[in-house]
Amino acid sequence: MLSRSRAVTPSLDRSALHAAYRDGLDPARVVEECLAGAAAPEARGIFIALAPEAAREAVAALGPFDPDAKPLWGLPFAVKDNIDLAGVPTTAACPSFTFTPERSATAVSRLVAAGAVPIGKTNLDQFATGLVGVRSPYSPPLNSFDPAVVPGGSSSGSAVAVARGLATFALGTDTAGSGRVPAGLNNLVGLKPTLGAVPVRGVVPACQTLDCVSVFALTVEDAWAAASTMAGYDPTDPWSKRVDFRAPGPVPPRLRVGAPDDSSRRFFGDDAAERAFDRALERYAGLGLDLVEVDFRPLFAVAALLYEGAWVAERYAAIRPFIAAHRDALHPTTARIILGAEALSAADAFSGIYRLAELRREAEPIWSGLDLLVVPTVPRAYRVAELEADPIGPNAALGTYTNFVNLLDLCALAVPSPFRDDGLPSGTTLIGPAGRDGLLASVGAAMHRAAGVPMGATRHPLPPAAALAGAGAAPAGHVELVVIGAHLSGMPLNRDLVALGGTFRRAVDTRPEYRLHALPGGPPARPGLLRVADGGRPVAAEVWSLPPDGFGRFVDTVPPPLCIGRVRLADGTAPAGFLCEPAGLEGARDITHLGGWRAFVAGG
Amino acid sequence: MLSRSRAVTPSLDRSALHAAYRDGLDPARVVEECLAGAAAPEARGIFIALAPEAAREAVAALGPFDPDAKPLWGLPFAVKDNIDLAGVPTTAACPSFTFTPERSATAVSRLVAAGAVPIGKTNLDQFATGLVGVRSPYSPPLNSFDPAVVPGGSSSGSAVAVARGLATFALGTDTAGSGRVPAGLNNLVGLKPTLGAVPVRGVVPACQTLDCVSVFALTVEDAWAAASTMAGYDPTDPWSKRVDFRAPGPVPPRLRVGAPDDSSRRFFGDDAAERAFDRALERYAGLGLDLVEVDFRPLFAVAALLYEGAWVAERYAAIRPFIAAHRDALHPTTARIILGAEALSAADAFSGIYRLAELRREAEPIWSGLDLLVVPTVPRAYRVAELEADPIGPNAALGTYTNFVNLLDLCALAVPSPFRDDGLPSGTTLIGPAGRDGLLASVGAAMHRAAGVPMGATRHPLPPAAALAGAGAAPAGHVELVVIGAHLSGMPLNRDLVALGGTFRRAVDTRPEYRLHALPGGPPARPGLLRVADGGRPVAAEVWSLPPDGFGRFVDTVPPPLCIGRVRLADGTAPAGFLCEPAGLEGARDITHLGGWRAFVAGG
Repeated sequence: MLSRSRAVTPSLDRSALHAAYRDGLDPARVVEECLAGAAAPEARGIFIALAPEAAREAVAALGPFDPDAKPLWGLPFAVKDNIDLAGVPTTAACPSFTFTPERSATAVSRLVAAGAVPIGKTNLDQFATGLVGVRSPYSPPLNSFDPAVVPGGSSSGSAVAVARGLATFALGTDTAGSGRVPAGLNNLVGLKPTLGAVPVRGVVPACQTLDCVSVFALTVEDAWAAASTMAGYDPTDPWSKRVDFRAPGPVPPRLRVGAPDDSSRRFFGDDAAERAFDRALERYAGLGLDLVEVDFRPLFAVAALLYEGAWVAERYAAIRPFIAAHRDALHPTTARIILGAEALSAADAFSGIYRLAELRREAEPIWSGLDLLVVPTVPRAYRVAELEADPIGPNAALGTYTNFVNLLDLCALAVPSPFRDDGLPSGTTLIGPAGRDGLLASVGAAMHRAAGVPMGATRHPLPPAAALAGAGAAPAGHVELVVIGAHLSGMPLNRDLVALGGTFRRAVDTRPEYRLHALPGGPPARPGLLRVADGGRPVAAEVWSLPPDGFGRFVDTVPPPLCIGRVRLADGTAPAGFLCEPAGLEGARDITHLGGWRAFVAGG
Repeated sequence: MLSRSRAVTPSLDRSALHAAYRDGLDPARVVEECLAGAAAPEARGIFIALAPEAAREAVAALGPFDPDAKPLWGLPFAVKDNIDLAGVPTTAACPSFTFTPERSATAVSRLVAAGAVPIGKTNLDQFATGLVGVRSPYSPPLNSFDPAVVPGGSSSGSAVAVARGLATFALGTDTAGSGRVPAGLNNLVGLKPTLGAVPVRGVVPACQTLDCVSVFALTVEDAWAAASTMAGYDPTDPWSKRVDFRAPGPVPPRLRVGAPDDSSRRFFGDDAAERAFDRALERYAGLGLDLVEVDFRPLFAVAALLYEGAWVAERYAAIRPFIAAHRDALHPTTARIILGAEALSAADAFSGIYRLAELRREAEPIWSGLDLLVVPTVPRAYRVAELEADPIGPNAALGTYTNFVNLLDLCALAVPSPFRDDGLPSGTTLIGPAGRDGLLASVGAAMHRAAGVPMGATRHPLPPAAALAGAGAAPAGHVELVVIGAHLSGMPLNRDLVALGGTFRRAVDTRPEYRLHALPGGPPARPGLLRVADGGRPVAAEVWSLPPDGFGRFVDTVPPPLCIGRVRLADGTAPAGFLCEPAGLEGARDITHLGGWRAFVAGG
């Protein structure tokens, strides 16, 4: 938060703010200080409009502090000004486009319902067209680290608001990379969810087939809390999809993460950026990730389609009636880009779609051996002066590692990494296939802590790791499975569970109702668990969760005499788990006294 | 087959032809007679080119009769002339477009590899644009029942070739309904598979996002045999998808099938068509289908997009370089339609895509309570004279019940139904969500037999039902489950299996290694199966198959003391199935002597 508000709370991240609220801090005071900070001269260009009435109304509706009922209780947030906030004008950074919506965007309504407090509408590249953040008729926001460097866009105001401590988080939109590039240039977390996970109702479209609502935050935990609040199927939104938006448990071991190979490294002469990326990769290796080199050519070819191909016509289609009436109202650079669509025919559009289908096919094999990709968030830090000389080129370069993501229906998370030698921030972005958002969050939270950098431009240190919303709980629809033998973590068959989408949930004993046996045969040696009326003991177990199809495939591989029934656990649950037919116990050794399979394997 | 060939074989359907081959009939003779029939004056307009060399080469490569190795052994087939057959010109019914491909389309190659014999290339509405079948500079084919009625298109030649007994089956393409309308007008089976199931490599595109290779045949079994031969993922085809192309077992009981409600019935004044459709529905009610009335407005709104909206630009994009060089070579009606795309902008194309996304969402609820839809294949039989007066209107009307199918990614099967009062054929079409092709085939085969009509225009009666390729076998990736109690067919919990995608496979006893118990508790009453070392008996069981996710969900609902292990069956298999924890048998009654649960429930 800007200096004048430091007195009240040291940081606006959720953990600090909720701790302060628990100690009695008044959210009204926090929000008033955010509003004051946002109105201060040094915040010039960040907001297009403040929303004091909406903010006060939201605070008044909070009720007593209850973060279980309202996980975002009292958290001030900013809204990119192409997303509707009821009663406040939406400009999309184009004054003559302005309208005042009666309803908030679905995403905003869901945040407010969860206790978040909207404080204002932030500046952007006009109509969200750009990755620089200065293509606005409003005074553009300044980069929070170096005013000579572009803030990044199109969601520039939202990113700078969070980086400078004026909000806990802020909404952006992301079509080409607008939810990631400004995060990279302002030392922030930027989460671009899977297409369709967060409804886009009430968002001014850029490219409707590609648009996402994104989140900037100081921590991965906070970005995830906001995104998982906004996510959820909306049958009234044609682009909405059912995306399972829960975080997995701990980061799975030996994750395979692809990084650009030598031929795919593009830094446009910015050696400091390249060195910073390499340092970041070194840090991540310490997290147990397996880094794999990947040829990005198919991805770069997809990226080229976004502005060079027919998709610019989506931007034209989005504001067509407005263009007809107010052609001269567009920012000169925005006009140059969007009006270019007038030369494109419907056949051009379909030809672009065909080319994308071909390139999607070419890019598919990349994922066959990988869990995620890791890339520099931006390849280079451009200066405002460079952009004034060439408004298009640097913008295109900034999208090097972002433009292919939405066209390929991937999700992405930008995370701060160790600073560059010149003191500017550096970010890396994790990318995964659609629906892998939760894995991005788990891995990204670990990466952020490994980076050892303060939050945004606030100089506050990153708080200790906290649970991600939904982490630990089995994802919706997942099935829990009790394992007691060769499928335990680190045991020979555990990889089969992981390959089928299994995630570790908890270690827990059975109720004292079972006898454990070492079955004849193997390898691998296998245990047989039998529930008995008398003489049972607790047996050490682990609970994993699997998606139903993975669980189904798994059960179909269970050999006799093993079977899958209900296993009663000491924690009161009774998930599906391994049991044994009594007819299979002939020749088996009763090892109940050892208390579990690990003890037996260890030579018990 | 035309009269001169009747001497050799009474019908070209696969069952008759394979029976004759088994009896020593020479396939070379059959193929020569097909070629002769196709060249006869009364076949004028059906073929654009015959392919005697390709046919003779295919016959020469057949080897001895072996329908297991080559399921289409010796079956003559015709190829719509927008699908490549190596060495034979592809015209798309536009002489100046003609090129001679070096390779056959993937679909054709797969048929030939399975023993089918290509005999020639058939006439069509130019560039597959039309549903009438007479928009061709080549003399158009005549409807096989009444030369005054249009043959239907665009795949007119393929349909008439099969209806008149010149081929066992023929390939069409289907973008708007070209694989179904001519089937309806010529008393044929017409199968339009799920988008992406059959590769489109080597097919002249119409609308690449919507094009399918389709099959015309005399029986559902033959259409299915050809389609399942052609289906299969092709990584070199950007539109190819992994569609599980196997037929289910017997038609599941109480299938819910939606038919147009009163407001959705459109016959354009053709009372004979309406009466025929009603008669067909009455016949199908006898098959145990639950007919449900459905409001088709959202579907009709989608249909309107196809020719009124931006998709015509796909047709333009498909032949753009050709148009640039040979603009005047187009058929006048084709030109009027396709060149209309020149007025459409890229923004128009995307606006159409947005509208489709909205309408898809509006159409989704239709499927919530339905397995399939049933519609008239064509709403009215138009006369050639009517078309000469108005080349566009009747064409649009013919697509009433077909145009929405591909835009919504549905699959469809046209099946003959009882003839109209005026002696013209009448057809009904089953429609299902993507991937439900196998269910269409199982239900369609039963419907075809219920219709009681001869095959095509051949006057041969429909042969007795035969197994559909892949029927009975669990679909690829499905999991088999042995049930012994309340999940048996007709028992109270059987609906749970069906709801999860379960399909009956076979009834079979266990090996004589089990004891069966009636467990305490319920309802529903449940059995407990225990494998024993001595004193076991066979127990009556059924094997069902489920997709892995349905199986996974199912296993997660199994209550203790039941569990899922391997059950050894008398047929030598040991699928997953119901067992019982011995600890759960307290208070249970041993009913092994009854031999199974049905006997117990019956009061044994």
